[in-house]
Amino acid sequence: MDRLEVLQACVESNDADALILTFMPDIRWLTGFSGSNALVVYTKGRSYFVTDGRYATQSRDEVEAGEIHVAPGSLMRHTADQKMLEGSNRVIVQAEYLTLSRLEEYKNVLPDVSFVPVSGILNASVAVKSKRERELIADSQRITDEVFDHLLGFVKPGMSEQDIAAEIVYQHLRRGASAMSFDPIVASGPNSALPHARPTQRVLQQGDMVVIDMGCFKNGYASDMTRTLAIGEPGEEARTVYQVVLDAQSKALEAASPNLTSKELDSAARSIIEDAGYGSFFSHSLGHGVGLQIHEWPSVSWKAEYPLQAGMIITIEPGIYIPDQFGVRIEDMIQLTETGCDNLTGSTKQLVVI
Amino acid sequence: MDRLEVLQACVESNDADALILTFMPDIRWLTGFSGSNALVVYTKGRSYFVTDGRYATQSRDEVEAGEIHVAPGSLMRHTADQKMLEGSNRVIVQAEYLTLSRLEEYKNVLPDVSFVPVSGILNASVAVKSKRERELIADSQRITDEVFDHLLGFVKPGMSEQDIAAEIVYQHLRRGASAMSFDPIVASGPNSALPHARPTQRVLQQGDMVVIDMGCFKNGYASDMTRTLAIGEPGEEARTVYQVVLDAQSKALEAASPNLTSKELDSAARSIIEDAGYGSFFSHSLGHGVGLQIHEWPSVSWKAEYPLQAGMIITIEPGIYIPDQFGVRIEDMIQLTETGCDNLTGSTKQLVVI
Repeated sequence: MDRLEVLQACVESNDADALILTFMPDIRWLTGFSGSNALVVYTKGRSYFVTDGRYATQSRDEVEAGEIHVAPGSLMRHTADQKMLEGSNRVIVQAEYLTLSRLEEYKNVLPDVSFVPVSGILNASVAVKSKRERELIADSQRITDEVFDHLLGFVKPGMSEQDIAAEIVYQHLRRGASAMSFDPIVASGPNSALPHARPTQRVLQQGDMVVIDMGCFKNGYASDMTRTLAIGEPGEEARTVYQVVLDAQSKALEAASPNLTSKELDSAARSIIEDAGYGSFFSHSLGHGVGLQIHEWPSVSWKAEYPLQAGMIITIEPGIYIPDQFGVRIEDMIQLTETGCDNLTGSTKQLVVI
Repeated sequence: MDRLEVLQACVESNDADALILTFMPDIRWLTGFSGSNALVVYTKGRSYFVTDGRYATQSRDEVEAGEIHVAPGSLMRHTADQKMLEGSNRVIVQAEYLTLSRLEEYKNVLPDVSFVPVSGILNASVAVKSKRERELIADSQRITDEVFDHLLGFVKPGMSEQDIAAEIVYQHLRRGASAMSFDPIVASGPNSALPHARPTQRVLQQGDMVVIDMGCFKNGYASDMTRTLAIGEPGEEARTVYQVVLDAQSKALEAASPNLTSKELDSAARSIIEDAGYGSFFSHSLGHGVGLQIHEWPSVSWKAEYPLQAGMIITIEPGIYIPDQFGVRIEDMIQLTETGCDNLTGSTKQLVVI
């Protein structure tokens, strides 16, 4: 479907006359605009792109869809002054992103319009990536794979988690990443048992497991990968747990296809971990969509069920976390195909002992 | 005023029964909690802190105000189950942060409550920093000053803007910053004429002016500083413009005190630039508050007028941008005192020629 047709379908299915997009990643997806302030008005088959004076040049270079307007002040006031929504009674807005004060402003500017909050307008469309988007995500992941390769020669006992996190950021930026897609996680020893640990000054020691979760943005698109290293020979249980997580991940990679729902895919990995007796230690979802945001719809989880579609790019990241002892997580990004999936991640998953 | 008294005053002045905080920097300011998911319910002199299972331990370590609750699922559902808002008819919510879909969830969970959106609830209180907060901001700025000192020996012609940006991030993280407070700006030659330029692969050349705007987070609090360097001997106009910006900044630093409004302070610097004939090239506000967020209330601008108060920490950052040629910006962070201000920034403002 053409991207504007997605907006038209939303307008029709909600019996509305128009739609206003305000969430910047959605606006970037629709128009190509990479700035920080804009809105898109769609009505009667036409779309208007409205930004402020800072982006006059950039919007002309970037925006591929719609008539470009540079507002002298408030974007919504300009929309009203230009009568873009004349004759529209019911106008859809993005319920999960629009704030109460912004809606109040809209109502003041357009007192005769009835605003209709709708959630998830573009979720299913944004989730399916084009060939070009896949290339851009693979480009970002290539940097992350290179940085992991660098880390295998860099990480040594005696370094702190923060030392390694600083190196991860530096090496991504040196390789052309515009920013990190999230602050990297470097969690060693007992800290690795916390799925969302922040890097501390704890120093890596013999016998530690070290969970490293990292990714970057390049050309707007995110990468995301987790690997777990061992510092010196790991204990027997750590080796066992590593193998269970790897088996669970392999099972999910084999199973992943549009024939499953997101919940069934989560279950494919989770059942391996449960059968090994570690079910209660896999406390988070199996994965999530990745694209212009590091976390996108759909969540791949036992909590909700969504149909999987060819073209979606998602993470597969099972983990086991033994409180106060250690944790293991292994995460790849994949793209679903008609019959299975392609793995976009190139780094080794054999347990590396440093 | 005690921090809970600020909430009580807001409840009373809006003729309400209770208040719900959902914006994380405000919750951190009130309770000390540094996690990513929580809400605070305040009613009848009592406050309840509600978070999810991931933060059970952390909330016990950090939260200083209120009864701590760990919700098994939705935070708002837990609030209802625990009858925290029983007997409350009018409940204030944060208008500029709460989304339409979140309000919908609240209404479903508490159908008998009338939710009252109010903006800027904590603005004036958060803006005035305690002694402890000033120390934490000065700590973050100390790192940024050290990194600037490092850059004076590091920056050379032939390096790209991106090379320097990567070094800036690396040096901040190595010195204990938890993250950057924003992606650093390194804008050279004609790029320096764009106030919000992103680092590119452009290589520094003789005759360039280079605007460097950077800051970090440590212990939750932000730093923010801009300096402009010259690569080789700058042209005559660049030297003139540098001096005008420096004079404008000096004037604002002399004038800054609680005797002025934010608009008058902006004007103190702006009039120097206007008198020198560059008024139309100073396109942004003079400054903004800094604290748990890199940009806080108040904006120091010609667009709105706020009373300045002793204790506020704000930036003073005049700039002149000559399109397609070069730009100059000089930015310090200051804390207003009863009679003037203290400068929290230690880096030299003499024009450094590299």
